[in-house]
Amino acid sequence: MKTASIISIGNELVEGLIIDTNSKYISKKLSEYGYKTIGIKTLPDDLDLLIKEINQSLKISDLLITTGGLGPTKDDLTREAISKAISKKLFFDEKLYKKVINKIKKFTNDIPQIVKTQAMVIKGAEIIDNPVGTAPGQIINLSDKTIIILPGPPVEMKPMLENALKKIMPGEKIYQRRIKTIGISEAKLVEEYNDIIYKYEAVNVATMASHTSGVELRFTGKKELVDEIVEELFKKLPDYIYAMDDKTIEEIVFEKLLEKNKTVSFAESCTGGLVSARFVNLSGVSKVYKGAVISYENEIKEKILGVKSQTLEKFGAVSKECVIEMAKGVSNLLNTDYSVSISGIAGPTGGTKEKPVGTVWICGYSRENNEIITEKFLFRGDRQTIRNSSAFHAFNILRRIIK
Amino acid sequence: MKTASIISIGNELVEGLIIDTNSKYISKKLSEYGYKTIGIKTLPDDLDLLIKEINQSLKISDLLITTGGLGPTKDDLTREAISKAISKKLFFDEKLYKKVINKIKKFTNDIPQIVKTQAMVIKGAEIIDNPVGTAPGQIINLSDKTIIILPGPPVEMKPMLENALKKIMPGEKIYQRRIKTIGISEAKLVEEYNDIIYKYEAVNVATMASHTSGVELRFTGKKELVDEIVEELFKKLPDYIYAMDDKTIEEIVFEKLLEKNKTVSFAESCTGGLVSARFVNLSGVSKVYKGAVISYENEIKEKILGVKSQTLEKFGAVSKECVIEMAKGVSNLLNTDYSVSISGIAGPTGGTKEKPVGTVWICGYSRENNEIITEKFLFRGDRQTIRNSSAFHAFNILRRIIK
Repeated sequence: MKTASIISIGNELVEGLIIDTNSKYISKKLSEYGYKTIGIKTLPDDLDLLIKEINQSLKISDLLITTGGLGPTKDDLTREAISKAISKKLFFDEKLYKKVINKIKKFTNDIPQIVKTQAMVIKGAEIIDNPVGTAPGQIINLSDKTIIILPGPPVEMKPMLENALKKIMPGEKIYQRRIKTIGISEAKLVEEYNDIIYKYEAVNVATMASHTSGVELRFTGKKELVDEIVEELFKKLPDYIYAMDDKTIEEIVFEKLLEKNKTVSFAESCTGGLVSARFVNLSGVSKVYKGAVISYENEIKEKILGVKSQTLEKFGAVSKECVIEMAKGVSNLLNTDYSVSISGIAGPTGGTKEKPVGTVWICGYSRENNEIITEKFLFRGDRQTIRNSSAFHAFNILRRIIK
Repeated sequence: MKTASIISIGNELVEGLIIDTNSKYISKKLSEYGYKTIGIKTLPDDLDLLIKEINQSLKISDLLITTGGLGPTKDDLTREAISKAISKKLFFDEKLYKKVINKIKKFTNDIPQIVKTQAMVIKGAEIIDNPVGTAPGQIINLSDKTIIILPGPPVEMKPMLENALKKIMPGEKIYQRRIKTIGISEAKLVEEYNDIIYKYEAVNVATMASHTSGVELRFTGKKELVDEIVEELFKKLPDYIYAMDDKTIEEIVFEKLLEKNKTVSFAESCTGGLVSARFVNLSGVSKVYKGAVISYENEIKEKILGVKSQTLEKFGAVSKECVIEMAKGVSNLLNTDYSVSISGIAGPTGGTKEKPVGTVWICGYSRENNEIITEKFLFRGDRQTIRNSSAFHAFNILRRIIK
């Protein structure tokens, strides 16, 4: 198996100003082409350190991918660092410069001088066009190694990576399956199904638990062996498995609705639009999704969703009774077949002894069958984690009621 | 300045299954305490590689923080790797084990055997309690170095890091200011204000551009010099600067509304709840926020928000006319002082020659002054980027109309 290293460059990454999301994307793409990522490094805009680490990574890997440091400012040093590390000169590419300024001219006639740096090319490099921004990428083939230089913004990097990989990759793929579960702990899953999960030494197993997406098992190895394990687990765990591989829980809900030709709406309180935003992130969702009411204030729960004032007085907004009325209300108002409602205390304040921070009620509703599923949760973590956990379980309850 | 290295451990990180968000959080925290992060490494669950890289990081840094690999399963190797790297034994801590199982008992009486690994402690280490999950952390003081071992899940890691840092840190802080701008390109900003931005050699400057949060300038150095630069930029760029330091654009909107004691609501189409979800992520937002209508389908725009059917027929849902009616509709319906509405084409399909993918109309509305601001955008990038850019600019238009 060929090996790869990834270097993400930028003071803003090392100093904690922004998160490096590129490396995850790149290593996943690489694994699809049979490259094993053996290291990811995040480095500051420091020429000496960059040269040293570029050389170090080239020693141990067949492929090196760098992202970032291609902007026009003083702290963008990637081109220079690679040029020095591999002792190949940088030159100004007049033709490339014209392409870059033509792009800028679409938006403004004011071309900053410093854009010239973006037309500096390493001798012998192949240019990768940037379909979104201005900084071009480069592919450098050394005798037995390859370097791919990409810009930092993910929206620019992603299509350029795809193009670069198509140019250099042999196309050999590995076999991997991932099982996503909900409702069982990592420790219990591994202990109880140990004989199936670790059945074959030749199958590499990884497990991981997340507060907001359940427990995932990943199997890598020969197709027959992996498929056998997956099949056995499906027999033993049908209630816990909600998705396979890249599928998210909202995609499963989307697919089920499409299949049945049904529609859905949401009534959200503490999640504040998170369920809707995650669902709308799926392209084509307009086929099944009509809309949502974010009833953050109780007045809106009453006035728009028709929650009874007695319900709010007697049981409060975070109650079984309230989420049932919210789910029914939004489904009737927006005329959808299914709905889900969420009301809870995301914290950090607002908790009581009876209803501590993390208390969340969720209701799934099927208008056709006049069927409801309600569940009370006590999520742990900060405000964001509680809201993310709520959204995840809202989709799971929707999945269960659509079934 | 003391140096620090961070190692994030887990096959799932190297192989691109999940994003390492911990390193950003940790290095930011470290910078607040005057530690300079000189490298971030992401490594697979591989004992030999871990031992080698732990030793390597200890050579160059005063502090090493590891996250991940503390779970109960076979691929959790952090404790063992550190024990071997620094030649200190691991022992089973009976008292700690009791604490761990007491935690599990709150949720289930079924204690998996493999939980025992979580009570393995490196000789001489100080235990860091895990307030959320089961895996404890550890602090190891060597003669001139410190190692902090933390679990991987961010919700567990964050409070434990805070506790660990309080125990070991001297508390010395550095001075840093960040200016966040919107409406001017990175290249133009740096070229036009070069003499102010790079006025002092002793002030470290970093710039970064993002499709979804504008251009940020960061200045690190002596307080007097940094403050002088910031003040001069404020004089020159008042229209472009929207926030300072950690503040996000939604926090600025929240503060303005609080200050004026006014309320807000949202009418979202292509953003699908993203604006609302980002706003609700701020704690205490109920003081100014009432709710939102996610009118993804045109029927909902008409029925709930009162957009005229002639408007939709004549101009379409992605039009100035439609967003004005959406903004006014939601503000009247939910009885708020301000509102913002968004309607656009997030793609990848649905674009036309006149309204290509990325076309987004946004309207800010002040009911009190019967004032509106509308703006048409053409965002670049994938569906998610277009939606994130839309949400960012929706808050900016809200900021402008509240002013």
